[in-house]
Amino acid sequence: MKKLELLYEGKAKRIYRTNEENAVLVEYKDDATAFNGEKKAQITGKGHLNNEITSLLFSKLHASGIRTHYIGKLSETEQLVKRVVIIPLEVVVRNVIAGSLSKRLGIEEGTQLEKPIVEFYYKDDALGDPLINEDHIEILQAATKEQVQELKENALRVNEVLKEHFLGVEIRLVDFKLEFGLTEEGEILLADEISPDTCRLWDITTNEKFDKDVFRRDIGDLAKSYTEILHRLGGQIACTK
Amino acid sequence: MKKLELLYEGKAKRIYRTNEENAVLVEYKDDATAFNGEKKAQITGKGHLNNEITSLLFSKLHASGIRTHYIGKLSETEQLVKRVVIIPLEVVVRNVIAGSLSKRLGIEEGTQLEKPIVEFYYKDDALGDPLINEDHIEILQAATKEQVQELKENALRVNEVLKEHFLGVEIRLVDFKLEFGLTEEGEILLADEISPDTCRLWDITTNEKFDKDVFRRDIGDLAKSYTEILHRLGGQIACTK
Repeated sequence: MKKLELLYEGKAKRIYRTNEENAVLVEYKDDATAFNGEKKAQITGKGHLNNEITSLLFSKLHASGIRTHYIGKLSETEQLVKRVVIIPLEVVVRNVIAGSLSKRLGIEEGTQLEKPIVEFYYKDDALGDPLINEDHIEILQAATKEQVQELKENALRVNEVLKEHFLGVEIRLVDFKLEFGLTEEGEILLADEISPDTCRLWDITTNEKFDKDVFRRDIGDLAKSYTEILHRLGGQIACTK
Repeated sequence: MKKLELLYEGKAKRIYRTNEENAVLVEYKDDATAFNGEKKAQITGKGHLNNEITSLLFSKLHASGIRTHYIGKLSETEQLVKRVVIIPLEVVVRNVIAGSLSKRLGIEEGTQLEKPIVEFYYKDDALGDPLINEDHIEILQAATKEQVQELKENALRVNEVLKEHFLGVEIRLVDFKLEFGLTEEGEILLADEISPDTCRLWDITTNEKFDKDVFRRDIGDLAKSYTEILHRLGGQIACTK
């Protein structure tokens, strides 16, 4: 497998073409960004950590019957995934009220929800990734009604698997963001990453935060928090320093 | 019918108790406000105009089989309505993209929608009346799933009646906001007002605006615009000056 030219560079990852028609290489960067790119930093080891964590979680999801783009890990910071066209929606699942939802609804962060909720945000940096409803998705032609239903169902299944998995290592899965892609055949696959960059992960007992809020809110050492998540999930990395 | 004590004062109306158990009196004020109360003015005659326009439109809706809280007009600025508990949702129907939706989706104001869309906003001044989805409505216990479905269906029926009615007087009904209330028996009634304060109304040919955007955007004489709407709807008022 050959790494060819850069196809796309995002805030936390680079995507490269490969010599395989239907696979691309994802390289995880050490960049941390928040607030739509307004806050930035370089965190040594972050790319390695997120590559490891995402690989573990996608493998777990695959084993639970969820179709994902993940093929396999290539190096400390690289993984191979199926080539898909990303659906321009961020699908957010929440089990506990936190962050923007706490502000939107005026409900205290930490409030447990009776059942998980699903939100759709329109992936558009210039618009600030706004919350949208299903009528808006139709106007934007971001997905069909049937695809929206499938995205919701998939997101809730991912939630069931991950919530249980994290609970087993004494982590509360507060909320997370998923992205999905379409294959050439029109199949919907879970794509992007699942890491402490895209999840809120709190210690089940102390509510200590082990996710990007550590960076957003300046409340600790991001690499240390992400390492804790990796260790709890049974992963190991050699010291990167 | 006796006007008794003030029950509630909003930005554009006052509600009074009456000697009738199940009816309250609505008094329309001359206050104009926009941007969640940040912009304010007194517009002589506005209360009278909105009372007249709302009365005409609620009568039209009643004749079309839509259940509303409206009982009848009492004076230039007062009307009698059934007493309901307001559901804390603003139900917005849009036929053309304008205002906040244009900004949210990055689509040009004036873009015609293929079919009307419905949005829910949570009625809470402190939170800035945020857009919410149906999962949020459940968390907030603002309405049940069945009520949300009924609100949507009612809002789309109101749209069909009003869109046709305004088209007949060469006005494009761009969008509008509805509020609904619950009677003691749990019946959902259309409530609040329907006026150029709560609708976007454009001339079908010139796109001249005859609604609150005239005030929001300082592009004309509000009382003159509202008078134009009243006249087109077949209403008359004596000179208020």
